[in-house]
Amino acid sequence: MNFPDLPVDQALHLKAKQARQCIRSGEWTTHTSGLADGYVQGNVVILPEALAHDFLRYCQRNPKPCPLLAVGEPGQAKLPALGADIDICTDVPCYRVWRHGELVDEPTDISALWRKDLVTFVLGCSFSFEQALTEAGLPMRHIQQNRNVAMYRSDIATEAAGIFHGPMVVSMRPFKAADAIRAIQITSRFPDVHGAPVHMGDPAEIGIADLSRPDYGDAVDVLPDEIPLFWACGVTPQAAITQARPEFCITHAPGAMLITDVLNHQLASF
Amino acid sequence: MNFPDLPVDQALHLKAKQARQCIRSGEWTTHTSGLADGYVQGNVVILPEALAHDFLRYCQRNPKPCPLLAVGEPGQAKLPALGADIDICTDVPCYRVWRHGELVDEPTDISALWRKDLVTFVLGCSFSFEQALTEAGLPMRHIQQNRNVAMYRSDIATEAAGIFHGPMVVSMRPFKAADAIRAIQITSRFPDVHGAPVHMGDPAEIGIADLSRPDYGDAVDVLPDEIPLFWACGVTPQAAITQARPEFCITHAPGAMLITDVLNHQLASF
Repeated sequence: MNFPDLPVDQALHLKAKQARQCIRSGEWTTHTSGLADGYVQGNVVILPEALAHDFLRYCQRNPKPCPLLAVGEPGQAKLPALGADIDICTDVPCYRVWRHGELVDEPTDISALWRKDLVTFVLGCSFSFEQALTEAGLPMRHIQQNRNVAMYRSDIATEAAGIFHGPMVVSMRPFKAADAIRAIQITSRFPDVHGAPVHMGDPAEIGIADLSRPDYGDAVDVLPDEIPLFWACGVTPQAAITQARPEFCITHAPGAMLITDVLNHQLASF
Repeated sequence: MNFPDLPVDQALHLKAKQARQCIRSGEWTTHTSGLADGYVQGNVVILPEALAHDFLRYCQRNPKPCPLLAVGEPGQAKLPALGADIDICTDVPCYRVWRHGELVDEPTDISALWRKDLVTFVLGCSFSFEQALTEAGLPMRHIQQNRNVAMYRSDIATEAAGIFHGPMVVSMRPFKAADAIRAIQITSRFPDVHGAPVHMGDPAEIGIADLSRPDYGDAVDVLPDEIPLFWACGVTPQAAITQARPEFCITHAPGAMLITDVLNHQLASF
């Protein structure tokens, strides 16, 4: 069984547990966009305990780019807060293993690499608020154009903690004014998945010289009557980790997220 | 006793009932800005029952510029929903009496003009959300510059009802981007007093040619790094009434509002 061979509707409605079973068995090894529709997906960072304290403080000090959904017990591969059966060693479709900041492997199972001092962090991602925007009838350009969202290194500095520091990375979505106001309202309801935008309007005010040249993802058109809205982005902690060059670190591969049992709607604060 | 002779602190903390007593007795006959701090103030429209049905439908169809706080019973001067002791014939500092669209008198008491077919409408005003913005530490230019807020006739058409129709009037407050996002969040909590902005950014998109030439109120400076935010304004129904030229109508005089027993905080939707 391979999801791409399923009719689209059927693949979209596979629920979280089923999706994780396919991932765990090695049948699904790539991006998770559109899988287990409605369920929270998370960015994954696994660090040795010695660095985990710094990283936890980094997330605590920078909640908009680093919204913590769960932190595992040291040495424990379970994350019961996000799903009773989750095993972080097997339940991410594809991992990236880093040593001293260098990518050394992309396995689909990290059981052989697990250590008693590893701590798992799961951070919220914008898929959750994008579902809410879509349900509210707000079209997003990158989805319309079938592109990755445009992301930029801003000149907004994050609060450093230990070895972790760096600029805030932001994702940009353009909207007409009335839709932009609505998008601010909707994403304000989701503080655990980046929340409201951190900036809107002139990109130069946050150090972005050219919207057509994103640092990550793909450029999208911004029409003359549209306002670019900038959200804190989960690439921020990944960039901080890359810069910090920890002796050992495991992350998810880009787009290949952890699927949880939490519904996106459960994250809404009101 | 006259409020302007009181120390400012004392005047600011006179509560709603005391303020209404001074107004009722004729001691206070002018604007109510800063009186009974924290209490909801309302725009007042009094119409014959034959026109009241149209006006009620006009408000229902245009809730952002015409947020109804209360509608009186025909012929009744009481508004128990807004304050047990309120008497609409005496509790507004200064009224305007209109016949066929012409201003014919500015009395401080309308008991002699009361009729059994008159219906009172009280509509929310932006004083309520401005308190919330101030409490959140968001400075407003017109308050800093001790001016009236800048208001403009937009090209956004209101939904007509009977004789009532016309363009939406909007008030403008400029903010830096981060404060603008916060201002949208805060005013979204107050749907009964105009709610979130209806537009932001380019004024031309809603038919405003020149921000320095407001149609009502005073112009304020908009700095290069600021975004103008536009809220639906309570002048909209007043403009619609002026255009409709009803045979008889009573309103409050500009700035001389009805002070209610409702706290601004009670209007917050979450």
